[in-house]
Amino acid sequence: QFASAAKKTLSKEHPCKRFVLYYHDILFDGGDVANATSATIANETKLGNFKFGKLVVFDDPMTRDSHLRSPAVARAQGFYFYDMKSDYNSWFAYTLVFNSTEREGTLNIMGADIMAAQTRDLSVVGGTGDFFMARGIATIETDTFQGAKYFRLKMDIKLYECY
Amino acid sequence: QFASAAKKTLSKEHPCKRFVLYYHDILFDGGDVANATSATIANETKLGNFKFGKLVVFDDPMTRDSHLRSPAVARAQGFYFYDMKSDYNSWFAYTLVFNSTEREGTLNIMGADIMAAQTRDLSVVGGTGDFFMARGIATIETDTFQGAKYFRLKMDIKLYECY
Amino acid sequence: QFASAAKKTLSKEHPCKRFVLYYHDILFDGGDVANATSATIANETKLGNFKFGKLVVFDDPMTRDSHLRSPAVARAQGFYFYDMKSDYNSWFAYTLVFNSTEREGTLNIMGADIMAAQTRDLSVVGGTGDFFMARGIATIETDTFQGAKYFRLKMDIKLYECY
Repeated sequence: QFASAAKKTLSKEHPCKRFVLYYHDILFDGGDVANATSATIANETKLGNFKFGKLVVFDDPMTRDSHLRSPAVARAQGFYFYDMKSDYNSWFAYTLVFNSTEREGTLNIMGADIMAAQTRDLSVVGGTGDFFMARGIATIETDTFQGAKYFRLKMDIKLYECY
Repeated sequence: QFASAAKKTLSKEHPCKRFVLYYHDILFDGGDVANATSATIANETKLGNFKFGKLVVFDDPMTRDSHLRSPAVARAQGFYFYDMKSDYNSWFAYTLVFNSTEREGTLNIMGADIMAAQTRDLSVVGGTGDFFMARGIATIETDTFQGAKYFRLKMDIKLYECY
Repeated sequence: QFASAAKKTLSKEHPCKRFVLYYHDILFDGGDVANATSATIANETKLGNFKFGKLVVFDDPMTRDSHLRSPAVARAQGFYFYDMKSDYNSWFAYTLVFNSTEREGTLNIMGADIMAAQTRDLSVVGGTGDFFMARGIATIETDTFQGAKYFRLKMDIKLYECY
C-alpha cells in the first residue's frame, strides 16, 4: 500500500533531470558520404503515398543548440520508419550515446512519432552509466524539415526515475 | 531495504489498470490499399520454411470487441518479423496510440510472440499522456488467423505501475 | 520524498539477480540452413565501409559456458543492425526466452552495442513469467569474432528490479 502511495509522488512537472538536445538527420542520397548521417535500408511500399514502410538507420549528432555544425554532445543511434498510409507518421527506437568528460552512458528510447501533433512523447525506457536505470519521457518537436535531405528535431529529455 | 520490501507488493493478480483490446492486421497484397493496414518491407529469407526474416510495418486498428469494423479506440503502430526456422514465431515492437475523449496518450510495448504458446506475454515498457510512466504486461493470444491476409490478436493489457 | 530516497538505494554493485550467458550467432550464408541461427534481411548500404544498415534477424542459442554445442538454456530472439560509417558499431533489440524446468519467462533488452568499447551496457527494459516486471542492465562483451560467419557475446545480466 505504501509503495503505491509513494509512487504517486511522480509528477510530470518535476523531472529529476532535464535537458534539451537537437537531433540532426542528413539522409544519404547515394553520393555525399561525408555529410550523410543516415541511410534508407528498406524502401517505401505502395501502401499509400506517404512512404509507408520506408526504414532508415541513423547515427545522428545531438547538439545543445539548433546549429548542425555545433559540437555533438551525444549521438543518437537507431532507426525510424514511416507507418501511415494517409499522412506522414513515423516510429522511432534509438539510443542516445554520451561519451564526454561531462556525461558518459546511454539512454534508450522508443515510441510513436505522431507527426500530426505539434509535440510527441516517446518513452525513455532505460539508461546506463551516468543514467543508470533511468526512465522518463522524451518530447520531440520538428524544428525544421527540408525535404528528404535534412530534418532536425528538438528533444526535451525529462527523466522521472534517477538513481 | 524498505524499498525492496515495498516493491514486492507488486502482484501479478492485481494490476492497477487493465483492459482488453483486439488487434486487426490486414496485410497489403499490392492491390487493396483501402483495406490494408500493414505492409511487408523485407521479404522472408531462405532460412527454413517459416518466413524467417519477413518484416512487416503496421498501423492497425484496436477495437473493444473482436469485430474488425467496430470503432477503433486506438491504433497499434510498429512492426513484427518472423524469426524461427523450424516453426512460425515472431517478435513485436509497437506503440498503442490513444486519441479519444476517453483516453489520450501512448503505451510502448515489445517482446517475443512465442506462437507455440497459447498466450504470450510482452512487456509494456513505458507510457505517455494518460499512461504517464506506466509499465506492465501485454498478454496476447491469436483470436483468428486467416492465412497471409488477416489475423487478429486479443491483447490483455495489465499495468502494474500507474502514476 | 520517501519514495525518492528509497529509490536511491539501487546500487550498481548489488543486483537482485545476476547470471552470465553466452550468445552464439551463426549467420546464414545461403547454404547451411541446419547450423545457421540468423539471416540478413536488409543489405548494407554504401554509406561508408562498415556495413552501415545491414539488418540481421536472429534466433540464437544462449549457453552457460562459451561452447557453442553446450545445451541452450535460453534463446535470444530479435535483431541487430550496423549503424556507423567510420567503424563497426551496432544496435540490438531482443528477447531472452527461457523455457526450462529451472526458469520460465522472458527478458526484453535493447540498446547500443558500442563496439569500440570493451564492454557495452544495454537496458533490460522489462520481463515476464519468472522475470515478472524486471529491469536491469545487460553488459555484453565480444568473446570471439570469426568473420562474417560466427561471433559470440558474453552477456552479464544484472537485474536491479525484481518482484
